[in-house]
Amino acid sequence: MAEPVKPLRVAVLGCGSVGSQVVRLLAKSATDIEARIGAPVELAGVAVRRIDAPREVDVPAALLTTDAYGLVTRPDVDIVIEVIGGIEPARGLILAALARGASVVTANKALLAEDGPALFQAADEAGADLYFEAAVAGAIPILRPLRESLAGDVVTKVLGIVNGTTNFILDKMDTQGAGYAETLAQAQELGYAEADPTADVEGFDAAAKAAILASLAFHTRVSAGDVYREGIAEVTAADVKSAREMDSVLKLLAICELRPQPGGEDAVSVRVHPAMIPRSHPLAAVHGAFNAVFVEAESAGQLMFYGPGAGGAPTASAILGDLVTVARNRLTGTQGPGESAYADRELLPMGETVTRYHVSIDVDDKAGVLAAVAAAFAEHDVSIQTVRQEGRGADAQLVVVSHAATDAQLSATVAHLREMSIVHDVNSVMRVEGVEE
Amino acid sequence: MAEPVKPLRVAVLGCGSVGSQVVRLLAKSATDIEARIGAPVELAGVAVRRIDAPREVDVPAALLTTDAYGLVTRPDVDIVIEVIGGIEPARGLILAALARGASVVTANKALLAEDGPALFQAADEAGADLYFEAAVAGAIPILRPLRESLAGDVVTKVLGIVNGTTNFILDKMDTQGAGYAETLAQAQELGYAEADPTADVEGFDAAAKAAILASLAFHTRVSAGDVYREGIAEVTAADVKSAREMDSVLKLLAICELRPQPGGEDAVSVRVHPAMIPRSHPLAAVHGAFNAVFVEAESAGQLMFYGPGAGGAPTASAILGDLVTVARNRLTGTQGPGESAYADRELLPMGETVTRYHVSIDVDDKAGVLAAVAAAFAEHDVSIQTVRQEGRGADAQLVVVSHAATDAQLSATVAHLREMSIVHDVNSVMRVEGVEE
Repeated sequence: MAEPVKPLRVAVLGCGSVGSQVVRLLAKSATDIEARIGAPVELAGVAVRRIDAPREVDVPAALLTTDAYGLVTRPDVDIVIEVIGGIEPARGLILAALARGASVVTANKALLAEDGPALFQAADEAGADLYFEAAVAGAIPILRPLRESLAGDVVTKVLGIVNGTTNFILDKMDTQGAGYAETLAQAQELGYAEADPTADVEGFDAAAKAAILASLAFHTRVSAGDVYREGIAEVTAADVKSAREMDSVLKLLAICELRPQPGGEDAVSVRVHPAMIPRSHPLAAVHGAFNAVFVEAESAGQLMFYGPGAGGAPTASAILGDLVTVARNRLTGTQGPGESAYADRELLPMGETVTRYHVSIDVDDKAGVLAAVAAAFAEHDVSIQTVRQEGRGADAQLVVVSHAATDAQLSATVAHLREMSIVHDVNSVMRVEGVEE
Repeated sequence: MAEPVKPLRVAVLGCGSVGSQVVRLLAKSATDIEARIGAPVELAGVAVRRIDAPREVDVPAALLTTDAYGLVTRPDVDIVIEVIGGIEPARGLILAALARGASVVTANKALLAEDGPALFQAADEAGADLYFEAAVAGAIPILRPLRESLAGDVVTKVLGIVNGTTNFILDKMDTQGAGYAETLAQAQELGYAEADPTADVEGFDAAAKAAILASLAFHTRVSAGDVYREGIAEVTAADVKSAREMDSVLKLLAICELRPQPGGEDAVSVRVHPAMIPRSHPLAAVHGAFNAVFVEAESAGQLMFYGPGAGGAPTASAILGDLVTVARNRLTGTQGPGESAYADRELLPMGETVTRYHVSIDVDDKAGVLAAVAAAFAEHDVSIQTVRQEGRGADAQLVVVSHAATDAQLSATVAHLREMSIVHDVNSVMRVEGVEE
């Protein structure tokens, strides 16, 4: 190559905690990035809401603009990095960029989980790339391994701790024995939870990530609305204590599972809920706000990917990794793998999902109670793995762990228990994961 | 695309435990692989040493050949999968395949660590791909994350448990308190160690993998011969016990590190040796024959990749993942990232590597001993972090943990201690990793 290589021009949409780290790293690592791509990368512009807002990085005034649409449709922009988040205007901007033929790198889990197929189609039609490693589990390389490293294998299960806020809260509840409200307040004080924590604690954030993970793992379209979702707001100190007594720990898990169906083809279950996992499981050792994704594949066996799930610099690292790939693809005139939805598997409703339950029941302390409770499980065809009787008199309690059954059978069993006169209260119901069925 | 897509033709070299799994999975997953690549993949032939040897998979007789060279130079072969291992004939066959323009997927760590640059150059000249995810840590996707996901970041350290045999042995020594020879015999009986365990226990296998990891992490050529290497044969039950008393555990680590140098540019240290790590470190929880690679990067922070490090099916999974990528590249007429050695960093000799030591010393039980030992450390400019006095009389012992110093300073200190009359024996010297310096 005798001629100097033309620089690739990058537009950044958003300059908050992630965007400012992207801008900083683009400048700081310019030499390395050029060596790794084979061409220099230039910042073409940064779209912001307010030119004069305080930000963590110095951006030359000439590069700042409030006209995001104008920026992404400029003919000299090769690659657009979208770190605004949310549905609009992010969607319109990404579609406009792709329509013009620019490639896009985004961290926008909500948008991908709501409208991924439309974005992939736009990228495909334009012959451009759409990369999004940063959308799930921050800096942890998990999407590329699923999309590429495991492309010759059959992924059967993904269990992810993909929300740092809820992991921080559940981990503190476990180590401090404190209640939910108190621990949430502590997390808010320390900056691990937002003033309005809904997106995290109700599982919306994890559900969007579960949809993305399931789509890639099972080559099937899954959107956030397809994901069964329970948050951690109902988790009590008693639940955490019960888990501890079973040598287990409670985690908010994003669970994506391939399930054989009676009729033939495997179906897909995607759900987010708190679950008990044994302390010996690799995910149990994921503390604080860290994230981890545990993957089971037919040939590869059990893999785990662990690291920081959020934060400006880690997220920017994932974005720049995508940027290098997308830039190389542009230089060679190719595209990376697009949407892969060929398997088009059926999505199982939660009721048909197969799980195990751990149930604590306050009962009358008299003969025949265990038999009556066992009969209630049997009536709904739920087989019991263990039952433990605890306390005496007013504190009498039965702790039942079921074998695998459908979620519908199990919830019917719990409803039935609540109707029984010998049952004072069903005080804890938890799903169990990470054990053989 | 109106015309049917021409199948990609794959030759497999070797049909042992990995090769037979590759052949099996190519057949079993043919439909999925075709959907993921966009073209069918056909087995063109399997090169074996003996046509009639018993093998784990049925290969049509017409596809078996003892003429490996003839197979890789056939004009209809698009991709060659090399799972023979060792230097020759693997090197000659790979070079012949690349020279013809075929892309190559290999699991051959020894060859890559000895002669990687020549192979990369051959691939580059031919416009073909050379992929090798399976060469390090079996099914764990670690090379692709290093080559691609972290391509926008600065990797500063890689700590890997990359040899299952030695991890199995050290883990058993830790949990059973048994000695090395006894545990090795047990590992051999269970099939975790070979009859001649040299390649594993002396660290040759880990050193080859360390060279590959360091090359990718630091964009610098590192060959197996550049790697400082100590195996586990000298590890005693007393070492394991000392580690346990420090709430630590001994692991054979592949350590790849970027070290700032007084003069300016960072240099690279690559070494394999047993090291004490705190039990709270994520690598400490890697048990049995599992592998894990812990990565520190400037922006991403601390990441860990965990999974099975060996075995026919896991290794075949990694190979097929590469196959899908290489096949897609052939269809689009492009190549994945080739060798990246632009940084060309200096390699530090072991003596200049900065480490910490944990030293147990049998000493006279009399006043002034601690002062004399401390003076020996000071004489070599090694600062002491903690010193603990244990036992009385004939059992008197000092346990010293140093601050970071060069390996040369530390080994001079130990030699000095051995000369001192008040020192009966230096009975355990271990390097310490996974802690702040």
